Amino acid sequence: MGRTLTYPKGVSNTANRYKHRATYDLGPIHRIINDAQVVHVSFNPGPDDPFPAIIPMIGQMGSFEYPSASIDEPLECYLHGYVSSRIMNLARNSEGQGLPICVATSKVDGLILSLTPNSHSYNYRSAILHGYASLVTDEEEKLWAMKMITNSVLEDRWDHSRVPPDRAEMSSTVILKVRVVDGSGKIRDGGVSDERKDYDNDQVTSNVWTGVVPVWETFGTPVPSGDGKVSDVPEYITSYIANKNAQNRALAEGAVKVVLPAEEQH
Amino acid sequence: MGRTLTYPKGVSNTANRYKHRATYDLGPIHRIINDAQVVHVSFNPGPDDPFPAIIPMIGQMGSFEYPSASIDEPLECYLHGYVSSRIMNLARNSEGQGLPICVATSKVDGLILSLTPNSHSYNYRSAILHGYASLVTDEEEKLWAMKMITNSVLEDRWDHSRVPPDRAEMSSTVILKVRVVDGSGKIRDGGVSDERKDYDNDQVTSNVWTGVVPVWETFGTPVPSGDGKVSDVPEYITSYIANKNAQNRALAEGAVKVVLPAEEQH
Repeated sequence: MGRTLTYPKGVSNTANRYKHRATYDLGPIHRIINDAQVVHVSFNPGPDDPFPAIIPMIGQMGSFEYPSASIDEPLECYLHGYVSSRIMNLARNSEGQGLPICVATSKVDGLILSLTPNSHSYNYRSAILHGYASLVTDEEEKLWAMKMITNSVLEDRWDHSRVPPDRAEMSSTVILKVRVVDGSGKIRDGGVSDERKDYDNDQVTSNVWTGVVPVWETFGTPVPSGDGKVSDVPEYITSYIANKNAQNRALAEGAVKVVLPAEEQH
Repeated sequence: MGRTLTYPKGVSNTANRYKHRATYDLGPIHRIINDAQVVHVSFNPGPDDPFPAIIPMIGQMGSFEYPSASIDEPLECYLHGYVSSRIMNLARNSEGQGLPICVATSKVDGLILSLTPNSHSYNYRSAILHGYASLVTDEEEKLWAMKMITNSVLEDRWDHSRVPPDRAEMSSTVILKVRVVDGSGKIRDGGVSDERKDYDNDQVTSNVWTGVVPVWETFGTPVPSGDGKVSDVPEYITSYIANKNAQNRALAEGAVKVVLPAEEQH
């Protein structure tokens, strides 16, 4: 077993509250990003606009240089989405290192229903990355990233669809590559936690139901649409759906059983 | 029926692609925000930090001044979350109108599996708001917002838990109020859409399954935890879960059946 790689802690990515829930380890942070169907990408449109912008994109961690790198090793973040020309132009025209962006995702795993609203919470997994985004210009790297991103939506889909993309498709597709500077994750799991003033109060405990409602993403029955003439839903799709549904449910239900750290127990 | 209120279109919130999917109407945008369990809030930490920050928060649209305002009327966005002291200090110290922020959320409703990766997509609903955030200092307004936010996690939970918050809880809770400047939403629904070069190619259509996999959020069986001594899960919880599960599923499955606009049909 090697050492655990962590992102550097700076002012911008260090947790101020519930520090035990925070992680700076590459592995868990990269996993949270890769599990997300959508990431939110923030950037500054320009000096005339006071507001940061956020656009939803698909993001995956990977290393084109070392394709066999594991999830807990240094990786870049590749982004694809309904990309406004703004972010692409900003990344294309950014001088030096690239466009400074923030990538974020959060997934709720359960509702924490405690005695009083102030102790309510979610079980959740969230992560952010800060880094510099630039356009992928190498055709081989772009193709590699397109395949990784397509397969993140549905495992093995790339090889089961019409590939490779033709010249027009390659030139109309823009992939952003983010050189990650730092990152952090936050994971809340476990059950309900309350304060003594409430759990010692019979009037309160006898009137309020407390517990956790697990929450997970469900994939439904595939609905045929469009021009494909394959009549039965292929096994790689049905098994992906079955596996994901089982995993998602097990994760949300399993999170409830995690024992809370001492500072939150009584 | 009155007129439909819309947000002003500016450079920062106007869609460049798939314009028919975009909406500037207050109603749909506010609904997408209110349906989200988590919103992502972006702000700029300061002149020394090149990166915008994103934090996950709980957000709800409402009007304290006109509490009976409907969802398609002008509303403020109220935010609560695991708030780093950074955003609160920035909002507290921001001069003039407040801290410029962006609020965003996206929900995937289905995987669009078309003939070729370039035509793959999601059914989804996303929305952003730009506005100026300031701290809610009026106690009555803060209490009203806390109740609205708690009940957005689980309908009627506020009145079924230990309320009102005591003095310590009121002072430790910080609520941000966002005066909305503009906003936009994007909704993609319907089935699969491909290009002629693929749907006219028997070799392609006979080998690729095309269709939509609906995706929705499922609430599981509540798991008792903590100090509440109510033995049976109360009806307001079980019925909320049953209703949400039915609604979420119907929305994802219903989205597949929406007829695509002419420009995407063939």
